Amino acid sequence: MTDLWREQADKLFKDIEAISRDSHEGITRETYGRGESEAISYLADFALTHDLVVEYDRAGNVIFKRKSDNGNAAFWYGSHLDSVPQGGNYDGLAGVIAGLLCLCRLDREKIETTHSVRVLGLRGEESAWYGKSYIGSRAVVGTLNAQDLRLKNRFSKRTLGEAMQAVGADTDAICRQEWLIDKSQFAGYLEVHIEQAESLERMGQALGIVPGIRGNLRHNLIRCLGEDGHSSAVAREDRHDSVFAVSELVARIDNRWSEYVAGGKDLVVTVGTLGTNAAHHAVSRIPGEVSFSLEMRSLHQSTLDEFYEVALAEVKAIEKERKVRFEFDKRIDTAPAAMHEPWVETFVQQARQQGHQGVRTPSGAGHDAAVFANAGIPSAMIFIRNQHGSHNPNEAMALDDFLAASEVLYLSTLELTS
Amino acid sequence: MTDLWREQADKLFKDIEAISRDSHEGITRETYGRGESEAISYLADFALTHDLVVEYDRAGNVIFKRKSDNGNAAFWYGSHLDSVPQGGNYDGLAGVIAGLLCLCRLDREKIETTHSVRVLGLRGEESAWYGKSYIGSRAVVGTLNAQDLRLKNRFSKRTLGEAMQAVGADTDAICRQEWLIDKSQFAGYLEVHIEQAESLERMGQALGIVPGIRGNLRHNLIRCLGEDGHSSAVAREDRHDSVFAVSELVARIDNRWSEYVAGGKDLVVTVGTLGTNAAHHAVSRIPGEVSFSLEMRSLHQSTLDEFYEVALAEVKAIEKERKVRFEFDKRIDTAPAAMHEPWVETFVQQARQQGHQGVRTPSGAGHDAAVFANAGIPSAMIFIRNQHGSHNPNEAMALDDFLAASEVLYLSTLELTS
Repeated sequence: MTDLWREQADKLFKDIEAISRDSHEGITRETYGRGESEAISYLADFALTHDLVVEYDRAGNVIFKRKSDNGNAAFWYGSHLDSVPQGGNYDGLAGVIAGLLCLCRLDREKIETTHSVRVLGLRGEESAWYGKSYIGSRAVVGTLNAQDLRLKNRFSKRTLGEAMQAVGADTDAICRQEWLIDKSQFAGYLEVHIEQAESLERMGQALGIVPGIRGNLRHNLIRCLGEDGHSSAVAREDRHDSVFAVSELVARIDNRWSEYVAGGKDLVVTVGTLGTNAAHHAVSRIPGEVSFSLEMRSLHQSTLDEFYEVALAEVKAIEKERKVRFEFDKRIDTAPAAMHEPWVETFVQQARQQGHQGVRTPSGAGHDAAVFANAGIPSAMIFIRNQHGSHNPNEAMALDDFLAASEVLYLSTLELTS
Repeated sequence: MTDLWREQADKLFKDIEAISRDSHEGITRETYGRGESEAISYLADFALTHDLVVEYDRAGNVIFKRKSDNGNAAFWYGSHLDSVPQGGNYDGLAGVIAGLLCLCRLDREKIETTHSVRVLGLRGEESAWYGKSYIGSRAVVGTLNAQDLRLKNRFSKRTLGEAMQAVGADTDAICRQEWLIDKSQFAGYLEVHIEQAESLERMGQALGIVPGIRGNLRHNLIRCLGEDGHSSAVAREDRHDSVFAVSELVARIDNRWSEYVAGGKDLVVTVGTLGTNAAHHAVSRIPGEVSFSLEMRSLHQSTLDEFYEVALAEVKAIEKERKVRFEFDKRIDTAPAAMHEPWVETFVQQARQQGHQGVRTPSGAGHDAAVFANAGIPSAMIFIRNQHGSHNPNEAMALDDFLAASEVLYLSTLELTS
C-alpha cells in the first residue's frame, strides 16, 4: 500500500511540476490563472480516474468527494494550488495531494467514516499576484469583498473580479459576502503544508504539528524626530539625537523581548528597516530624523497587545529623557489563529506513534487554515520539513517526509471520524 | 577712541560686505578667487591709508605691519578672508579686521611692544571650494603639497595650483614644502573668530576663550553583517540581527560617552548616518546588514585613542554575543590642537577684567590656529558670539560683541608684549 502511495505521490508532483514549469525558472501557477487552472484540471482527471466525485464551489475552488459522501457536515482537507511567480512546487500543492491520496486510500481500504471527508483545492492563496492573500478561502467564508475584486494583477493588470469570473466564480455572491459553501458543511478543516521556516530542518524532524498561526502587529513607518546640528557644536545635554534615541529604544525593546521569551511567551519582534534621512544626514551632523519599522508576531493577541503597550511605554520614556518625538503611522493588525487544541493533540500523539517527536511548530507565515479557524471552523495543520525556504525555485521537500505527514493525517482522520 | 574703533569696524564690515555680496544671496569670497582678492585689495588700501606697511607672502596671503616693525620674531594676528559660497560676512573676516584695528590702535596710542605685532590675512581656509581646508596657512607652514595643487575647484574646475599662481604664489616653493614665512618670524599666532557653534549664544556671553580645537577620529562607513531571514521563521537564539546588534552597540557607546562626560573628559560622539540595506530590507525580514558612521571629537588625542579602544571592545563583545561581524573602512584622524595655556589664561583674565565670564569654549570646527599650533607655534583664540550658525547667509554677529573681543585681544597683546 505504501508503495502505491509513494508511486502516486511521486507521479502527481512530477506531472504537475511539468505542467507548471516557468519558462525562465521554477514553478509558476498564477492565482486565478493558467498554472493554477491546469493543476486543477490535472487533479480532476486523476480524481475521476480514481472514482471520486469532482465539484467546484462558487469561488472556483475544486472539491473532491468520495461517492459514499453523505452530504452532511464533513472534514475538509485543504490547501492551495497557486504559487508565487517562479516559486517551488510544494508550497500549497503538497496539502491538496496529501488530501486526495488520503481520500483514495479511504476508498481502497473501504473505510466508512462518521463524518464525510472531502478535499478543497483552493485558489489564490499567494499575495504575490493581487497584493491580497487567501483569496479562495476568504471567498468561501464570505470575507472577500467588492473592493478586493477591483484589485489588479501586478503583471497582467486584469482585475481579480475578471479573473474569478473567467473560472466561473459567482462574483455577485462574493460581493454579498455570503458563505459560498454553507457553513454547516464544515465539521473541520485539516491542512498539510510545507513549513516555510526551517525549524523542522534544524530539529531533524520530518514533520511538526502547528499549534497556531501567528498574528502580527505592525507599524511600517515610525519616525523619531530630534534636532539636526553640527556634531561638535551642541553639548551632550542639549542634544536631541534621533540615532541615540532609536538605538536605545530598539535595545530596550530587544531586552524586553528576551524577558518575554524567557517567560515562555510566544513572541517575535523585528525592526526590519531603519535609516537616517539621506537628504540631511552627514557623518558630522547630529541626526535629527530616523525612520524605522516595528513588527511583532505572536500566537496570542493578548501577547501582541501587551507587548505593544510595553513598547509604547519605552517610547514615552525616551521621548521624555531625550526630548525627541516619535510619530507613528497606522497600526496594522492581523489576528493570530489558534488551531483546535484537541486535534493538535491527536496529531501529536499519532506523530509519536509513528516514531516522530511530534514537535509543535508555530506558523509564522499565514495559511488558509487561519481563515477557516478565524471564521469559527475547528482547524488543524501538519507541517512538512522543507529545505531552502519557500517562495523560491530551490524550495525542496523529500518524498519520505511528505509520506510521513500524509500517514499522520490519514491515521488522525481515522481517529477523529471513527 | 572706542567711538572711532566702532566707526572703523562698522565701515570695514559694510564695505567688504558690499564688495563680496553674492548675486543670489549672502556673501561669496572664493578661495584664491575674486571676492577674496577684492577683500585683500580693499584692506590693503585701508592699511596704506592708515600708514601701515602691506606685504604678501609666497602663498599670496596679505601681511600688514607697523612701520616701526623691527623685523624680528613677531606676534601674528590672523584669520582668513575667503568664505563658503553664499555664506556670511563675519566667518574669517572678523579676525583680520580685529587684528588690523589693533595694529592701528597701537600706532595711535604710540605703543612700543617687545615683539613686533603683525596681521596675516590668510587665503583659502574653507574646504567648500577645493575640498581642502586651511590652504593658505598650510602653505605658510609647508604642509601643503604638490598633490593638493592638483585639486580642482568644484565650480570652475580650475586647479588650485593655477588659482594660486594667478595671485602670485610660489608653487615651486609650495611643492618643496618649505616654510613660506620663516618659522623664526613667529613668536605666536593670535586669532579672533566667530564661534561656529551656539554655546556663547546659549550662555549669554559676548566672547569665549578657546582652550583648544578638537581633533576627530572617524569611520565614514562601518558595516554590521548578520543574516537575513523571515522574521517569524528564525528562533530568537538563532537570529543574527544586524539592527539589534547595531542598536545595542550604539546604546552602549552612548552610555560610555556619558561616563566620559561625567568624568570631565572632553569628548563628542556622533553616529550621523545609519541604515539597513534598502536593496534587501523589508518590514518582515530579519535585517542582515546595517551601515553606519562613527565620529569622535576631543581636545585630547589620548581621549580619542582611549575611547576608540572602548568602542572596539564593545564591537568585539557584540560580535561574540550576537554572531554578527563588523567591517570597518579606513580610520581617518585629524589631530586636536591645544592652544598655548599661559596665553589662554591671559585672555581669560583680561576678559574677566572687562566684565565677561571668560568662559572656555572648545572649538569643534577647525581653524587656521590649529595649523599653526600643530606646526609648533604657540597659538591662542578668542571666539565671538554668533547667531544663526555659520556657513549660511543668516550668520550674524553684533558689532558690540566684535568690539568686546577686539578689546580683549588688544589688552592681552599689551600684556604679552610689554
